[in-house]
Order: sequence, then C-alpha cells, then structure tokens
Amino acid sequence: MTNVSCVALSGGVGGAKLALGLYKAIADPTELLVVANTGDDFEHLGLRICPDIDTVTYTLGGISNLELGWGRQDESWAFMETLSLLGGETWFNLGDRDLALHVERTRRLQTGETLSDVTADMANRLGIKAAIAPMADRDVRTIVETPEGPLAFQHYFVRDRCKPTVTGFRFNGAAEATPSSALDLALSGVGPDLVVICPSNPFISVDPILAVPGIRDRLLRLGAPVIAVSPIVGGKAIKGPTAKMMDELGMDVTAAGVARHYAGLIDGFVLDTVDKDAAAEVEDLGMNVLVTNTLMKSLDDRVMLAREIIAFSEQLK
Amino acid sequence: MTNVSCVALSGGVGGAKLALGLYKAIADPTELLVVANTGDDFEHLGLRICPDIDTVTYTLGGISNLELGWGRQDESWAFMETLSLLGGETWFNLGDRDLALHVERTRRLQTGETLSDVTADMANRLGIKAAIAPMADRDVRTIVETPEGPLAFQHYFVRDRCKPTVTGFRFNGAAEATPSSALDLALSGVGPDLVVICPSNPFISVDPILAVPGIRDRLLRLGAPVIAVSPIVGGKAIKGPTAKMMDELGMDVTAAGVARHYAGLIDGFVLDTVDKDAAAEVEDLGMNVLVTNTLMKSLDDRVMLAREIIAFSEQLK
Repeated sequence: MTNVSCVALSGGVGGAKLALGLYKAIADPTELLVVANTGDDFEHLGLRICPDIDTVTYTLGGISNLELGWGRQDESWAFMETLSLLGGETWFNLGDRDLALHVERTRRLQTGETLSDVTADMANRLGIKAAIAPMADRDVRTIVETPEGPLAFQHYFVRDRCKPTVTGFRFNGAAEATPSSALDLALSGVGPDLVVICPSNPFISVDPILAVPGIRDRLLRLGAPVIAVSPIVGGKAIKGPTAKMMDELGMDVTAAGVARHYAGLIDGFVLDTVDKDAAAEVEDLGMNVLVTNTLMKSLDDRVMLAREIIAFSEQLK
Repeated sequence: MTNVSCVALSGGVGGAKLALGLYKAIADPTELLVVANTGDDFEHLGLRICPDIDTVTYTLGGISNLELGWGRQDESWAFMETLSLLGGETWFNLGDRDLALHVERTRRLQTGETLSDVTADMANRLGIKAAIAPMADRDVRTIVETPEGPLAFQHYFVRDRCKPTVTGFRFNGAAEATPSSALDLALSGVGPDLVVICPSNPFISVDPILAVPGIRDRLLRLGAPVIAVSPIVGGKAIKGPTAKMMDELGMDVTAAGVARHYAGLIDGFVLDTVDKDAAAEVEDLGMNVLVTNTLMKSLDDRVMLAREIIAFSEQLK
C-alpha cells in the first residue's frame, strides 16, 4: 500500500471505477478526496438528483448495481411502476432505495445544509472512509448545444439518449461558483501528492469541474503532478458518448485527442496498451506518458491501475 | 340501486368505509362527492402528505391495505429501510408505492396546480367514478392543544401515538380558506339529495371541514337532510382516539355525546343497535334517529348501511 494523499476528479461510472481503485490502493483512505462533477445534477419530480456524486458514493460504498451499470444493488421499482400509473414522468428511472437518497438530500438542502455537508454525511453513513465532495456547492448546470438549440444535460443524455449532434457546451452558474470547501482545503497548504483526472468524459464530466473559477489555476500552481487517464481506448469510449462528441466537435477520436484537450493543464497522461503508438505524439505535447492496461474489468484491475498511476506520479515529482 | 346525489364528509379509515358503501349503493356513482378533511395534511421529507384524501382514494380505488388499516395494498418498504440507514426521519411510514402519489402530488402542487386538480386527476387515473375533493385548496393545519403546549397534528397522532391529553383544537388557516370548487358547486343550485357526515372523528376529521367559512352555513340552509353516523359504538370508538378525546374534553363518551356535538347542524343521526337505548335522548336534541348495525366489517355491511342511510334521508325530506 502506498502512503500518498490524492485528489481525484470524477464523473460517473468510468471515473468511479478508478476512484474505487485509488480508494483500495492508498494506505490511508482518508487521504483520498474524490471530487464529483455536479454539472449533471438536476431537479426531477421535485427532487435534487446528483448522478455523479451518487455513482461515486455507491461505488466506494460497495453497493453499486453492477448489472445495470447505474444505481444501487438490491434495487426494486415499485415507486416507478406506480408513478407511471399515476401519470408521472418516467423517462428517468429512480429505484425505491435510490430514491431515499434523493428525498433525504432534497429535504436537507431545503433546510439550508450545503451539498457538501449532505454528500459527506451520506458517504460517512455508508461507511466510506474517503472524502467525497461536489466540485462546488453552488448549482452548475451543463447545457448541451445542438443545431436544434440548447438542451438541459439530462434531457440530452437520458431522455434523448445522446442522439442530438453536439456543437458545444455551457456550464450555467459555473462562473459564479467557488470550489467546495473540501476541494479548497485539499488544494491549500502543502496540497495533495497527486491529482488524478479519472477516465471520465472530458467535456461533460471534467470540463464542468475545471470551469469553476480557481480550480484550473490552482491545479496549474500545484507542486504535485496532475495525471489524466484516457477515456478513449482504441478509438472508442469505454462507456458513454465521449467518442461521438469528439467526432461531432471535429476532434481526432483518439487517446491523443484527449491528451490535446488537457494540454497545458496536466503533467502526465495514461493511455492504454492498445494505443501505445500514440505515446510519442502525446509526449510531443509536453506530457509524460504511462502506457498500461486501463480497461478495469475487475476490482484487481482498478487497484492495479491506481497503483501504477501512483508510482508514475512519484517519477514525475 | 338508489338514484340520488350525495355529498359525504369524511376523515380517514372509518369515514372511507362508509364512503365506499355509498359509492357502491348509489346508482350513478358520479353523483357522489366525497369531501376529505385536509387538517391532517402535512409536509414531511419535503413531500405533501394528505392522509385522509389518500385513504378515501385508495379505499374507493379498491387498493387500500386491509391488513395494515392504512396505505396501499401490495406495498413494499425498500425506500423506508434505506432512508433509515441514511439517517432520515422514519416515524411516519411511507411505502414505495404510496410514495409515488406523494412525490407526484408535491411536484404538481409546486407547478401551481391546486390540490383539487391533483386529487381529482389521481382518482380518475385509479378508475374511481365518484368525485373526491379536499374540503379546501388553501392549507388548513389542525393543531392539538395539550397541557404541554400545542402539537402539530401528525406529531400528536403518529409520532406521539395520541398519548398527550387533549384540551382543544385549532385549525390554522381555516378562517382564510374557502370551500373547494367541487364542494362549492355541489352545495350550489338544487344541491345534493343528502349530505352524510361519515363515522369519522368529530374533532379532528369533521370539525376542520366545518371550520372552513361557509360550509356549516350552507349545510344549514340546504333543502336536503344532513345525516351523521356515530363513530362511537357501545361507548368506544371503532378506531382511533375519538373516545379518549371525548373523555379528556369532559364529554359523555356515548353516541348521544356525538349527537350533541352536531346538534343544530344535522337533521338525522345514525346510531348502532347496541346503543338503541340512547335514541330517545338523541331525539330530544331535535334529530331523527336511525338505529341499525353500523360496524361495517364486510363490504356488504358498508353497502347495506349506505342504503339504509339513503332510505332514512328520503323519510326526512
């Protein structure tokens, strides 16, 4: 086990896999802070839904639904079935157990607690020793620009199944937001030993975090290495619309294309063995490169990748 | 089947039983309007809960939970179990299916729909042909006065299990409320053929309805008979704290005590065969009396009682 402190920036499923690897690889898990994107957050059925915070929380809590790829294990759907009969909106699925988190979070936010407070307390109640924090407590809402006009993120992502062509993104509220207190604290003083940008979608999972004023600047000024892991392997996204978006935005759908997106911010880039020929191109961007297996099919894969990233970060100091 | 139009004033379980009897006894069920007490309504977990509306709706919809005596049949509790693990408030039980109604109602109220609109639509979606309406659309909140101070109704009723001594009641907001449009319409023009005050708790189920300005006056001016059914049988309440409250308020815990409470408002009073000796005392209050079996154990009992009440009303014209 490696005794380091780490800040991981994460979106949903892909990012949470590596966050779990880091959680298991770091000797003292309280030295890990996972910062989740909140640009995906939305109000639905009067409830505050935070998909990325919840995916990270369920994954680190060991209760994520591995069959579905989202939500909780041991889930049931009586609420949703009944809501459908009552004429409610059913395009966004909410399991009976998952719903408890949304209802309780919404209630606590209404009493004036911050999203940071609620997120930290829920993680604690689920026995998670790492810290989980939103990127910011103020609402930030990702808007997907399409030729037919702007779409709220979950309408694009879930309702419309990522079918509309993407021409760009806006992060409403980001300019007025400030980093959450846990992130602010982690980037203050001596700072962490490393920052990992998880293999999440660069545009809709990582860029919203970087759009919060201060975060990008403080990562640049940090003494510790910032390392990103490619979500593109062999020209395809492991999960989700990353490849489709890159293509629609006129980018090369390659790991090198992702590296270029992060150029100027990161010190190290991790790409998959199948993309090893791209290493030279990425190094030409002024980054160090780690070539390894990034697929993370098993828990062992996740821990192994986390350990390699930590070892890589130690070479970069 | 009797072809009459009827307005029934109802609280929860006891009242809903007779409402169901009337629903089955009236030839054209669209001629029945069940007006539910909303003094029990409250906000819980950020949701608007309307216990009496829901009990009436589930009962007339044929989906009430007969084993529990509240809530829906085929209910599951995954939400509540998880909420408990997350540290949420669990003193008020909400089943997974029941929750769908609360979440959808809350959402629709937040968009500006009235409680009347939502209640009518939910009843319609559950296939109920009778009309169900709240007594008023404006919030009315029953406060139970006790020697230790006032208690919000559900805190008295569910959290504290009716243990505090009752010294009186207040219906916050009632003075500013107006009858719901369905009730207003039903009491206008020719009016209904009869009004039934169901065997609900007089203090916390019926009095909140009568506290809405205009309702009592209009019942008094109505050409049709107003008939109340005693919730006290043999000196005991069939269900709930009616007897305990009467005792604490210094009233006789008898059917005649209930009749005295409604004196000046009602034309007819229905008491159970076991209380037949009280008939003369009730007649002395200036009311006509129907003595019959009021226990309503089976559906047949409910329909039978409803038919007897309708026949009784025809004698009173």
